[in-house]
Amino acid sequence: MRYDFFIVAAHPDDAEVQMGGTIAKLTRAGQRALIIDLCDGEPADYAPAGVRRQQAMRAAQILGADRLLLDQQDRFITDNISTRLTVARLIRQHRPRMIFATTEACIHPDHAAVKSLIAAAVFYARLKNWNRVPGGESLADTEPWEIQRLFYPHCKMEPAWGDFAFAVDVSETYPLKKQALAEYKSLFQVDEGDQLLELYEAEDAHMGRLFGLAYAEVFKSHSPLLVTDPTVFLPALHG
Amino acid sequence: MRYDFFIVAAHPDDAEVQMGGTIAKLTRAGQRALIIDLCDGEPADYAPAGVRRQQAMRAAQILGADRLLLDQQDRFITDNISTRLTVARLIRQHRPRMIFATTEACIHPDHAAVKSLIAAAVFYARLKNWNRVPGGESLADTEPWEIQRLFYPHCKMEPAWGDFAFAVDVSETYPLKKQALAEYKSLFQVDEGDQLLELYEAEDAHMGRLFGLAYAEVFKSHSPLLVTDPTVFLPALHG
Amino acid sequence: MRYDFFIVAAHPDDAEVQMGGTIAKLTRAGQRALIIDLCDGEPADYAPAGVRRQQAMRAAQILGADRLLLDQQDRFITDNISTRLTVARLIRQHRPRMIFATTEACIHPDHAAVKSLIAAAVFYARLKNWNRVPGGESLADTEPWEIQRLFYPHCKMEPAWGDFAFAVDVSETYPLKKQALAEYKSLFQVDEGDQLLELYEAEDAHMGRLFGLAYAEVFKSHSPLLVTDPTVFLPALHG
Amino acid sequence: MRYDFFIVAAHPDDAEVQMGGTIAKLTRAGQRALIIDLCDGEPADYAPAGVRRQQAMRAAQILGADRLLLDQQDRFITDNISTRLTVARLIRQHRPRMIFATTEACIHPDHAAVKSLIAAAVFYARLKNWNRVPGGESLADTEPWEIQRLFYPHCKMEPAWGDFAFAVDVSETYPLKKQALAEYKSLFQVDEGDQLLELYEAEDAHMGRLFGLAYAEVFKSHSPLLVTDPTVFLPALHG
Amino acid sequence: MRYDFFIVAAHPDDAEVQMGGTIAKLTRAGQRALIIDLCDGEPADYAPAGVRRQQAMRAAQILGADRLLLDQQDRFITDNISTRLTVARLIRQHRPRMIFATTEACIHPDHAAVKSLIAAAVFYARLKNWNRVPGGESLADTEPWEIQRLFYPHCKMEPAWGDFAFAVDVSETYPLKKQALAEYKSLFQVDEGDQLLELYEAEDAHMGRLFGLAYAEVFKSHSPLLVTDPTVFLPALHG
Amino acid sequence: MRYDFFIVAAHPDDAEVQMGGTIAKLTRAGQRALIIDLCDGEPADYAPAGVRRQQAMRAAQILGADRLLLDQQDRFITDNISTRLTVARLIRQHRPRMIFATTEACIHPDHAAVKSLIAAAVFYARLKNWNRVPGGESLADTEPWEIQRLFYPHCKMEPAWGDFAFAVDVSETYPLKKQALAEYKSLFQVDEGDQLLELYEAEDAHMGRLFGLAYAEVFKSHSPLLVTDPTVFLPALHG
Repeated sequence: MRYDFFIVAAHPDDAEVQMGGTIAKLTRAGQRALIIDLCDGEPADYAPAGVRRQQAMRAAQILGADRLLLDQQDRFITDNISTRLTVARLIRQHRPRMIFATTEACIHPDHAAVKSLIAAAVFYARLKNWNRVPGGESLADTEPWEIQRLFYPHCKMEPAWGDFAFAVDVSETYPLKKQALAEYKSLFQVDEGDQLLELYEAEDAHMGRLFGLAYAEVFKSHSPLLVTDPTVFLPALHG
Repeated sequence: MRYDFFIVAAHPDDAEVQMGGTIAKLTRAGQRALIIDLCDGEPADYAPAGVRRQQAMRAAQILGADRLLLDQQDRFITDNISTRLTVARLIRQHRPRMIFATTEACIHPDHAAVKSLIAAAVFYARLKNWNRVPGGESLADTEPWEIQRLFYPHCKMEPAWGDFAFAVDVSETYPLKKQALAEYKSLFQVDEGDQLLELYEAEDAHMGRLFGLAYAEVFKSHSPLLVTDPTVFLPALHG
Repeated sequence: MRYDFFIVAAHPDDAEVQMGGTIAKLTRAGQRALIIDLCDGEPADYAPAGVRRQQAMRAAQILGADRLLLDQQDRFITDNISTRLTVARLIRQHRPRMIFATTEACIHPDHAAVKSLIAAAVFYARLKNWNRVPGGESLADTEPWEIQRLFYPHCKMEPAWGDFAFAVDVSETYPLKKQALAEYKSLFQVDEGDQLLELYEAEDAHMGRLFGLAYAEVFKSHSPLLVTDPTVFLPALHG
Repeated sequence: MRYDFFIVAAHPDDAEVQMGGTIAKLTRAGQRALIIDLCDGEPADYAPAGVRRQQAMRAAQILGADRLLLDQQDRFITDNISTRLTVARLIRQHRPRMIFATTEACIHPDHAAVKSLIAAAVFYARLKNWNRVPGGESLADTEPWEIQRLFYPHCKMEPAWGDFAFAVDVSETYPLKKQALAEYKSLFQVDEGDQLLELYEAEDAHMGRLFGLAYAEVFKSHSPLLVTDPTVFLPALHG
Repeated sequence: MRYDFFIVAAHPDDAEVQMGGTIAKLTRAGQRALIIDLCDGEPADYAPAGVRRQQAMRAAQILGADRLLLDQQDRFITDNISTRLTVARLIRQHRPRMIFATTEACIHPDHAAVKSLIAAAVFYARLKNWNRVPGGESLADTEPWEIQRLFYPHCKMEPAWGDFAFAVDVSETYPLKKQALAEYKSLFQVDEGDQLLELYEAEDAHMGRLFGLAYAEVFKSHSPLLVTDPTVFLPALHG
Repeated sequence: MRYDFFIVAAHPDDAEVQMGGTIAKLTRAGQRALIIDLCDGEPADYAPAGVRRQQAMRAAQILGADRLLLDQQDRFITDNISTRLTVARLIRQHRPRMIFATTEACIHPDHAAVKSLIAAAVFYARLKNWNRVPGGESLADTEPWEIQRLFYPHCKMEPAWGDFAFAVDVSETYPLKKQALAEYKSLFQVDEGDQLLELYEAEDAHMGRLFGLAYAEVFKSHSPLLVTDPTVFLPALHG
């Protein structure tokens, strides 16, 4: 099965926090999405083992995405060749045009491991001749696939971004994002006003208000942006 | 009369928007504040001439500050020697320890003129021998005064700052800031939800949430920061 | 008459050099363009007075744009209130959605004056009540107009940009750009291989090759970019 | 026993070089300090095994700090999970409010390993449920602890910093810093004028002179700074 | 045998792409060069095993350099202590004054591993007492050697550099660079116009045209540049 | 008469402070230097009118340079067309290969005016046809001249530079720099230890120690640096 885009993040809930509004917006426009979490997020703060996975599955469903949880250990996630190959194989199988990953993370070591891991997986996915690479044989029975773009949503536990590549208006799908995040009662004190949830919404509201919108999510890009022409950009508050 | 600090901004309402919470916090701690607006803000969008000045005076009172409106023309504010001397003379007369001004403004030309103007005024204020400078005689009958620090609050019409020198917790005085801004019915559609007021509050809330607080205002500094020791800094969310 | 976009540059030929391919691409897609040069470019190196204006008119025609030459003096262009008002009036009359101007110029003083001048004109254009502003009466009989976006093409006499907001594929219209530039025989030694023309083409070719294209032109933006969703971006070489 | 702050550095002498003056200033104000070196610094250039450890202990005593040497191998220091857990356990046991570590190091690979290692240890220290993390059991019998601030002194073998978060006036305790460094005769040719010692003092003197002081030490911060109000900042030379 | 400089790169062809013109320029001036590739570049896209090595040897010969291929596995190159020691040993044996390596690479994981690996090798090479370091004995029978400068050519698969430390005019030796690259028919579709080869030449031409030259190669430096006096710098287009 | 290089600065003493060691080094190597001060530095703090000019002349002589004082008013220096033309005329008359000016100044408004002023003068100097430019006739009787490089020494009243283009070893000529500065008793309390003189020397010592030298002066460049080959660079402390 083909997916139009992947979101690869460290833990179940990271994809939602970083870009839940954009995921829902794209899936409602007919794009097929796969969320890949590098671990199952255990142990969770407020629930026994297994609950967070169920919440993650429901959250993905709310956003219209499929979800896959890989088997790295929460808190000990690293950029290693085995996981690079696993993700590369998923890319070759599902042939997404876009991938979203985490960048510039310095607070949580799991987040910090994602960028180089996914950049490597993206690069591996497009290479040929894996049958001739000792240790790389798991890619040998899939065809090379080159994605079109790799983007990075903001990881909201990290310092705020003043400078980003682009923002996406997520005002319409923001209720879905909040609904998805509300599933994670293993993580957030949803009903009592969790400090982190308040930070996340405050950032999305601030980014939105920069454009006169209710909510926006912001993204960086390693490679420069290319457009057909500048009319694809929506209005900013003062130009 | 001595003031402990000046806030110099282009128009009546800029000081409030940029750092109303910090002004109120400092004045409630006993510091004497003078807001200097470079013009009277006429013409205002929603009121006849003169109303904005009255609103500005009430807003300053709410924040516990005195206020002075200079006579540059709104929309045509420039960095010129005459205004440099006027502000320098005020500095020498009132001997503030801190001055707050506007920096990095590119949207509104009036805001863009403030930084070099105030930096020059600060420098002029500390120089001797103005009686020997043709055109600088207006400073000759005042004594040199060297301020301790020049800081720059964020001008919220300009792009967001990801990187700033420091933030001030203004959660307690934020109601005063909102009350002061609500005075400016010549400028904002206060009762119907003005787009700019929403942006301003969204930014202050986001900056606050970065520290687990309700509201914070952020500042840059041209010169580096010096502290007695690092224990003066309050906790951040994850260190 | 309405124009869809303006290009404001210091001299006749700057608009072509900076973004001739993008102008032609937009006009061929039906957008109406007005090039505004702040001066007539006299004296030109290789022709008597008046020739450069004729060349500029032909070059604009090749790109499908109208052209207006203002009356500042080449070499002495400044950001002044009179020219701000002139450009603001043109904005209010022709109501463009996008404006392109020059930024980050340090080599040629005329280029350096453009950014603040046009930012001010854009801001003036959206303000009301000019009849109540002494010196601003020339805007009083036009209606406020707020543009959607202000972008900055690269001024190729200035240092190269490693970091820019976005690029536009101009491979198809590049022959028109070269044809337009070839008109300027008052400026470039077109037939003998002018050093500057070679620099300009080398930059466009390099920017294009970053995306596997023949030619691209690159742009910065003061305000952040907003898009409907990230699928508007075209592929980069390695994602 | 509680410590008020930790300094974690690669080798014995790094803590002194980077922030010896600040350590002494804080301990003389009654704060309890623990210096943690990731290795014992063997082999040293000018002494047999074991001497450097003794020198380090005397240097710490001069600065009023306790000291702990971990067992990584000098020259081969890495960010690994075992050391993350060791440092996290020390944080949970001793509950410091501040931690100082090394950042932006590119010359010495040992220094380069510190930043991500300590950021991870700080994050691990605040997490719950380590009994449910395979491989993380060593933290299970200690309570979570969240530090208030993580700061980074300048590693003086690395390029100079023009931009830093804040400086600390260490003029008064600088003799103690020099006395502590003079202990390291296994490392520096103290009596003949060691090139590195001269660099270290020249940097501290330059940073001090920026504020009209004899000596200052400078620090960066990953998270933004928060203060009660801007009056905590001491005067700069020209504001 | 002494070499005057090393170029250390991930794969056979990287050294040529990044700085083939500079290598040829230096060797023609009598400097002895050694290219060290961290792997043999297998599997290559368009040739059976072993061909790329032969091409690499011929390419080095064209540039006047010797070449050594280390035994890491292409696609899986890492910064590890064993390779650090191998390169450090080569530095101590051949005593180069300059080393060139790869920096700021984010697209290809092999390139990304080079910077910290070579910085560590450079540092190891200057240290004494390796006989007392468990695991470092392979350096014990060579004398310490301190290089003079470590520079980084641009890795052209990565984003363009607007800002670099210096450029080298390679117009005269560019035919040799192209001839060397043309050897790599295992990698590039040389005769049909390979997209990457076109990117590489477009970048070198653009960098050259910034100075009015046919071709230039650009470099960064971790440590600041020191010169006898500023007359060593060649003219720029507009100063 | 031809000069090999100009130093253009705001006040008498700025050239010495910023790059006195480099001036002396170049003149002792046979290069002819002209220092151009934009004003005469009156009023000086500690001397009657006219003394500073005499001190400036003696200081220039110590450094082996000629000196010219222009007639702008200290404290009110601006970038204006008349002074641009004056400096451009000097460039055309004396045909220097290098010019040094002041950049990135924000503390002293006079310093802040220099960069755009000199960049414009450099550009004017190379243009033809000034007889056809109303107001530019003063350049009509001199031939165009294009300098080779424009560099910017650090203005030591401004924030320290962590990042600069290159440093010059001035250890040998530093006594001449100190001797030249000691002339300025109208400005500095030379004998009692002036705070600013101490800052200036501390910076030069720190910059020197970065390379294991006694003193160095540092420079930025607007245009990128070009060298024949990388061997022109002297050793750094750790490569």
